[in-house]
Amino acid sequence: MARFILKTKQEIGISPDELLFRGEQKIDNVLLRVIDFDANNLEENAVKTVSEVPKYQEKDSVTWFNIDGIHNTDIMQEIAKDFNFEQLIMADVMNTHARPKVQEYDNCIFISIKMLRQDNETDLIQVENLSLIITENVLITFQEIKGDVFEPVRERIRKHKKRIRNSGTDYLAFALLDIVIDNYIYIISVLGEKIETLEENLLLEPKQSVIDDINSYKRELNFLRKNIKPAREMILNLSKMESELIAYSTDVHFKELQDNINQATESSDSYREILSDQLTIYHTTISSKLNDIMKFLTIFSVIFIPLTFIAGIYGTNFDVVPELHYEYSYFIMWMVMIILAVIMLIYFKKRKWF
Amino acid sequence: MARFILKTKQEIGISPDELLFRGEQKIDNVLLRVIDFDANNLEENAVKTVSEVPKYQEKDSVTWFNIDGIHNTDIMQEIAKDFNFEQLIMADVMNTHARPKVQEYDNCIFISIKMLRQDNETDLIQVENLSLIITENVLITFQEIKGDVFEPVRERIRKHKKRIRNSGTDYLAFALLDIVIDNYIYIISVLGEKIETLEENLLLEPKQSVIDDINSYKRELNFLRKNIKPAREMILNLSKMESELIAYSTDVHFKELQDNINQATESSDSYREILSDQLTIYHTTISSKLNDIMKFLTIFSVIFIPLTFIAGIYGTNFDVVPELHYEYSYFIMWMVMIILAVIMLIYFKKRKWF
Amino acid sequence: MARFILKTKQEIGISPDELLFRGEQKIDNVLLRVIDFDANNLEENAVKTVSEVPKYQEKDSVTWFNIDGIHNTDIMQEIAKDFNFEQLIMADVMNTHARPKVQEYDNCIFISIKMLRQDNETDLIQVENLSLIITENVLITFQEIKGDVFEPVRERIRKHKKRIRNSGTDYLAFALLDIVIDNYIYIISVLGEKIETLEENLLLEPKQSVIDDINSYKRELNFLRKNIKPAREMILNLSKMESELIAYSTDVHFKELQDNINQATESSDSYREILSDQLTIYHTTISSKLNDIMKFLTIFSVIFIPLTFIAGIYGTNFDVVPELHYEYSYFIMWMVMIILAVIMLIYFKKRKWF
Amino acid sequence: MARFILKTKQEIGISPDELLFRGEQKIDNVLLRVIDFDANNLEENAVKTVSEVPKYQEKDSVTWFNIDGIHNTDIMQEIAKDFNFEQLIMADVMNTHARPKVQEYDNCIFISIKMLRQDNETDLIQVENLSLIITENVLITFQEIKGDVFEPVRERIRKHKKRIRNSGTDYLAFALLDIVIDNYIYIISVLGEKIETLEENLLLEPKQSVIDDINSYKRELNFLRKNIKPAREMILNLSKMESELIAYSTDVHFKELQDNINQATESSDSYREILSDQLTIYHTTISSKLNDIMKFLTIFSVIFIPLTFIAGIYGTNFDVVPELHYEYSYFIMWMVMIILAVIMLIYFKKRKWF
Amino acid sequence: MARFILKTKQEIGISPDELLFRGEQKIDNVLLRVIDFDANNLEENAVKTVSEVPKYQEKDSVTWFNIDGIHNTDIMQEIAKDFNFEQLIMADVMNTHARPKVQEYDNCIFISIKMLRQDNETDLIQVENLSLIITENVLITFQEIKGDVFEPVRERIRKHKKRIRNSGTDYLAFALLDIVIDNYIYIISVLGEKIETLEENLLLEPKQSVIDDINSYKRELNFLRKNIKPAREMILNLSKMESELIAYSTDVHFKELQDNINQATESSDSYREILSDQLTIYHTTISSKLNDIMKFLTIFSVIFIPLTFIAGIYGTNFDVVPELHYEYSYFIMWMVMIILAVIMLIYFKKRKWF
Repeated sequence: MARFILKTKQEIGISPDELLFRGEQKIDNVLLRVIDFDANNLEENAVKTVSEVPKYQEKDSVTWFNIDGIHNTDIMQEIAKDFNFEQLIMADVMNTHARPKVQEYDNCIFISIKMLRQDNETDLIQVENLSLIITENVLITFQEIKGDVFEPVRERIRKHKKRIRNSGTDYLAFALLDIVIDNYIYIISVLGEKIETLEENLLLEPKQSVIDDINSYKRELNFLRKNIKPAREMILNLSKMESELIAYSTDVHFKELQDNINQATESSDSYREILSDQLTIYHTTISSKLNDIMKFLTIFSVIFIPLTFIAGIYGTNFDVVPELHYEYSYFIMWMVMIILAVIMLIYFKKRKWF
Repeated sequence: MARFILKTKQEIGISPDELLFRGEQKIDNVLLRVIDFDANNLEENAVKTVSEVPKYQEKDSVTWFNIDGIHNTDIMQEIAKDFNFEQLIMADVMNTHARPKVQEYDNCIFISIKMLRQDNETDLIQVENLSLIITENVLITFQEIKGDVFEPVRERIRKHKKRIRNSGTDYLAFALLDIVIDNYIYIISVLGEKIETLEENLLLEPKQSVIDDINSYKRELNFLRKNIKPAREMILNLSKMESELIAYSTDVHFKELQDNINQATESSDSYREILSDQLTIYHTTISSKLNDIMKFLTIFSVIFIPLTFIAGIYGTNFDVVPELHYEYSYFIMWMVMIILAVIMLIYFKKRKWF
Repeated sequence: MARFILKTKQEIGISPDELLFRGEQKIDNVLLRVIDFDANNLEENAVKTVSEVPKYQEKDSVTWFNIDGIHNTDIMQEIAKDFNFEQLIMADVMNTHARPKVQEYDNCIFISIKMLRQDNETDLIQVENLSLIITENVLITFQEIKGDVFEPVRERIRKHKKRIRNSGTDYLAFALLDIVIDNYIYIISVLGEKIETLEENLLLEPKQSVIDDINSYKRELNFLRKNIKPAREMILNLSKMESELIAYSTDVHFKELQDNINQATESSDSYREILSDQLTIYHTTISSKLNDIMKFLTIFSVIFIPLTFIAGIYGTNFDVVPELHYEYSYFIMWMVMIILAVIMLIYFKKRKWF
Repeated sequence: MARFILKTKQEIGISPDELLFRGEQKIDNVLLRVIDFDANNLEENAVKTVSEVPKYQEKDSVTWFNIDGIHNTDIMQEIAKDFNFEQLIMADVMNTHARPKVQEYDNCIFISIKMLRQDNETDLIQVENLSLIITENVLITFQEIKGDVFEPVRERIRKHKKRIRNSGTDYLAFALLDIVIDNYIYIISVLGEKIETLEENLLLEPKQSVIDDINSYKRELNFLRKNIKPAREMILNLSKMESELIAYSTDVHFKELQDNINQATESSDSYREILSDQLTIYHTTISSKLNDIMKFLTIFSVIFIPLTFIAGIYGTNFDVVPELHYEYSYFIMWMVMIILAVIMLIYFKKRKWF
Repeated sequence: MARFILKTKQEIGISPDELLFRGEQKIDNVLLRVIDFDANNLEENAVKTVSEVPKYQEKDSVTWFNIDGIHNTDIMQEIAKDFNFEQLIMADVMNTHARPKVQEYDNCIFISIKMLRQDNETDLIQVENLSLIITENVLITFQEIKGDVFEPVRERIRKHKKRIRNSGTDYLAFALLDIVIDNYIYIISVLGEKIETLEENLLLEPKQSVIDDINSYKRELNFLRKNIKPAREMILNLSKMESELIAYSTDVHFKELQDNINQATESSDSYREILSDQLTIYHTTISSKLNDIMKFLTIFSVIFIPLTFIAGIYGTNFDVVPELHYEYSYFIMWMVMIILAVIMLIYFKKRKWF
């Protein structure tokens, strides 16, 4: 699981707009893809060089330019030049340790967010930094590796879905952010199901392994919250932004995003509380069980203690111990012992000790 | 009890205005009912097809169009067309996992809230998604199943209650929301009574089952809070909304709603704290009881330990043990033992150990 | 002690402006009292019927119309008609379960607050719903039972205290609210004294009963906070209200009210924390005491265990046990035992085990 | 230590502007002192009667009129009359239970704050109510007893310090409040040092007395916070106040006050947390130590239990116990016992039980 | 580690603009350095006396005047005079105990912040007070000792980095603050790595030393938060400041600072929670392990107790104990004992006691 914060000694004091890749390089080659569409036409292809892209800028159609791999400084430099972006933006794109944020510039809106993906095979959560730059006609997205969660949006574009084909880059950006947040909710859903399953097992048979599970779920939830919280803040800032690049009709969609991420936050809070409660239940059950055992054993011992004492008394070798010489002494001793044990049992029972 | 959050893999990335039923389908057929009234006239009937409804739109009277069953995409599509609603609204109506919200549109206000109902027979709480669309003359409500909690409002309309018959769709919407929130309060009332009963039992006889009860009440309260909290936020937004569809005179009623839901929130907070306190009391009582038992038993054992030791001494087979041969040794041993036990008891008593 | 929240099945869905008494009826007959005064004149009498009151409305003097008993719908109806109040106000007056609030209307300000009274004989706190309606010349107060805490204000009016006789209904309302909040502070004072007394006893001799006391004080504090918190919110709203019915010169007094209720809140918070600390101290002291006992007893037992073992060895009946036949064996055994015990004691002491 | 809140039965319902001393009278006679200065002149003397003061009002110089003892109603009345203050101000001055506050009036600003002083001999903290009234040319301060913490300010005035001699009553008031808050910080500093010393001792040798220390420091911190928190709120209000009595150039100083009191608050929060942590460490250390002892003792006992059992076996008096009659039986028994004990020790060691 | 708050008795009541060094003097001589640059020229040298500096004020180039050592009152006085600063600024510079803050003056902006540095050799964190004064052409920085963290900025200036050489004092100030905050993040990174390493060890083998580590990390985190929190507040105020000294284009950088310090805060919060969780895990693991040991030992003892009792019975010396005289009695006793032990073991196993 990713570290909460990371800054190497080398990164300190570097100029914020210096193009320097910060993070772990995950792929070798940078992959460029372009989808260009309007209500009627659709063009989709892999692009070889960045230099092919600027021409789309002049077209009225919406162009979605996706870049997988953010470690190549030259490409970043070229994009900055072609689109006339401030260098600070490209530096932010290349910094995978940055906090989710939205920033308005003269000619674009820059958005960065963590993209989480549940890998169903390994059951691990993959984190990836996603950056979006919204300009008037072109939406540029930057991802760390090739696979992404955006296939449904591409499908919607391909299938001529009316809404997305008739809207601008703002709606396209919304659609992508919507999927990112849907994935947050999905991941919480999956985790939530595990937590609720744990609960049932917990009441059936409390095992030591439960602690490990609770702890690992807690850590996972912590990690999710750490990513969701600043994203929520970012979405809030986005929905309050009054930019010409965001059409009035898209506003309601950003409100929807806010609702979704609020739901994610609240659910993660609820599961957090449930985990705490589970820990308490576990402790209570375990300690109550141990107490029962110890109580049983102690009572058991206590009953034998006076009996052993009596036997000890008649094991002494005094010359004169009158009881030793009566014929029925031995049997009387047994009777006394049994009566004593029964009295003690009754007494303990009466005081509700077992 | 419903899951806190639910998102299936399939739901990710679907366009937000795609009409897709998300949730568990609870009834087969969609049921349509219309109540149309003004100060003087009242017309109430079940409607066969949605196409009968739009005609009410032109009448000056207030029309309450209620739809039970939200899984039928065709009907939703038709309503959207007839009333000229944005498709996003209908998509929200069909999503039972959505968070309570209020959203203003050009021609209507959309409200969604969770409707909770205490089923007195099964003692379970039923959750249902309720959506309201307020237009100028028509109020449309969407429910998941047939039964609802709105009968008192229908009664008020039928009984010619002056206020409701003279007001518009805004007041009608208020009346419905008021009932929904009254039910929140009622459910908390019922739960609160159980919690207070538990308290009395707790002090009389602390049993293991108390933990289970506290835990289940805690879960129930958690569930209530999870539904009430976003509803409260929604009501707040509603009362701050400056829409032409909400008459100035209705404003004071929405303030009332706010007061009620605040009361619900505060009470649930209080009961939450009480449950925490009860858990503490339970633990304290249980552990204090166990401590008393263990202390008693330990003291009991400790008294016999030196006595058994003495008996052991005179059970040894040394050739020369002078004490063994005095005539009264055995009786002296008993006396010493008794004196020793009494001294220990006095010592323990003096140090307030029992 | 009153329930935190109460809503009966019957109350759900009733129109908010329906005049229906909600609560427990505490007296049979409604009692009406009028005090009418200006700087020079004072008239004070019990009134038989509500119809006598409206005439005061036209006088320039300040009239304080007090009503004990709020269950009579007819009287409420008549007041609403005479003073031209909205019916919602009267419905709020009759609802003892409502949350403290302040609401501005066209012709009046409606205030409701919980009046708490420390009954010095029974040591119980009585709760009563108090409603005030401030109009230009008349202040109407509604109480549930006859006795109240307002006698000092009546005295101030009777004794020609300059300020109150020269001010309007707003200052009179302030004076009444001031007393209500003074009583909050007084009740917290009384409770605080008990808590501080408990503290001293706690350190002298921790008893089980302390838990019960702490718990009952905690509950009481919880109850107070539950009533004070919304009152505080209400006072805040009141002091921010820009109404013609509240003279500018009275503003400073409402700020004073705010200070007082803030003080009440902060003190209750402090006592809450003190109670939590006391619980911790109690637990620590008790468990530390138990630990000492158990440690002592365990060490005591442990010392005898090897001694008893030695005695056991020489109690065996082997044909050949050379030690048994030396003359001083028995005495040597005693010596060995004593030395062993001393060594163990020294060892335990050295490791600071007792 | 002062009570958190105090309201006697008698104080309830008294008119807020009634001149009534509330608190504990600490000195017999009221002491009046006047310092009058401008950039060039300085006059300092004790004044016999209040009537000497008003004349300073007309002078352009700054007059600091200090009154020790606030129980004398006549003097308060006279001041109110001479300076034309509202009676409410004087009533506030005489109420030592009031919450720190700042209030703007037409002709003055009224400030009240708790003055805390560390008494280095008794190591106790003295609390005193301090009231300041800022008018154009005169600053009036009211204290409960004679000694105060303001000597450094008097020194600065006497030593012709430029800034204070050239400024008005507002800067003088700032200088006094600055000292009050400096004392808060000093008291927290002193307490903080004790807490940090405790920490070191805690790790060296955890004793029961630590609990008492932690508890008493916690109480003291609680008490400080209770006084600092409303003072902080008051300072905030003061720095936001737009009054003609506060020169623009003094604004930056009130910001400084805010910084200081924020620092005090944050430090008290930090120490609070440290105390909580210390309690946890104490508990952990103590219980871990106890556990070690109990484990040792239990293992010790457990090793002897089977040995004693074996001895018991050969202490039986059966006619036929073949082992008893072999020559080396006794020695074999010893060997078996020793081997058994060693095996058990190895087993326990291997499982890391000690 | 530095104290949370420090105020000596002597510091109370000193005039806030009195030039008095408060803190621990760390170097003997004050060191003055000047870097003067514009897009084309760069001049860097150590300065002997303060009097050389004012001449830079008139140049259009950006001058960074750095002063190491803040204890010399004369130098401060001279700077105040040369640059026409208010004396309060210099007093703030000389007070190392002050809280991070930003304050706007007529001719400058004053910023103070704590500079933290991870000393990689001693693994300790060094704290130093850093003050910045931004004027139109000159940036003055004050440090307590000679070494600093600003070398990368000097490098950027020397290497003709375009951005920094073309910007004003505001951007230079940003670059310095950026490094300070980068160091905060780096320190948290380093601490975070230790905490995550601890976690792995914790699960492998819980030792007592873990408590000490957790406690020391907690203390360190506490210390960081104590410094970061007010810095964050300061940065927020800075980014909201509308001063002519801060160019519009630098605004976006101050937003970046805010993001960074928010990230630092959130990460420190996360690690705080992780430490709490670790403590819980440690406790759970330790106590669960102890419980297992105690349970084992108790069961072990309990099995021998009835056996020892039986042996005791046949060790009695009664004249008539029939069993003693049967030939196989002794062997039967052994069998009975073994069967008893096995039954008990099966019973305990069945009830899942071990």
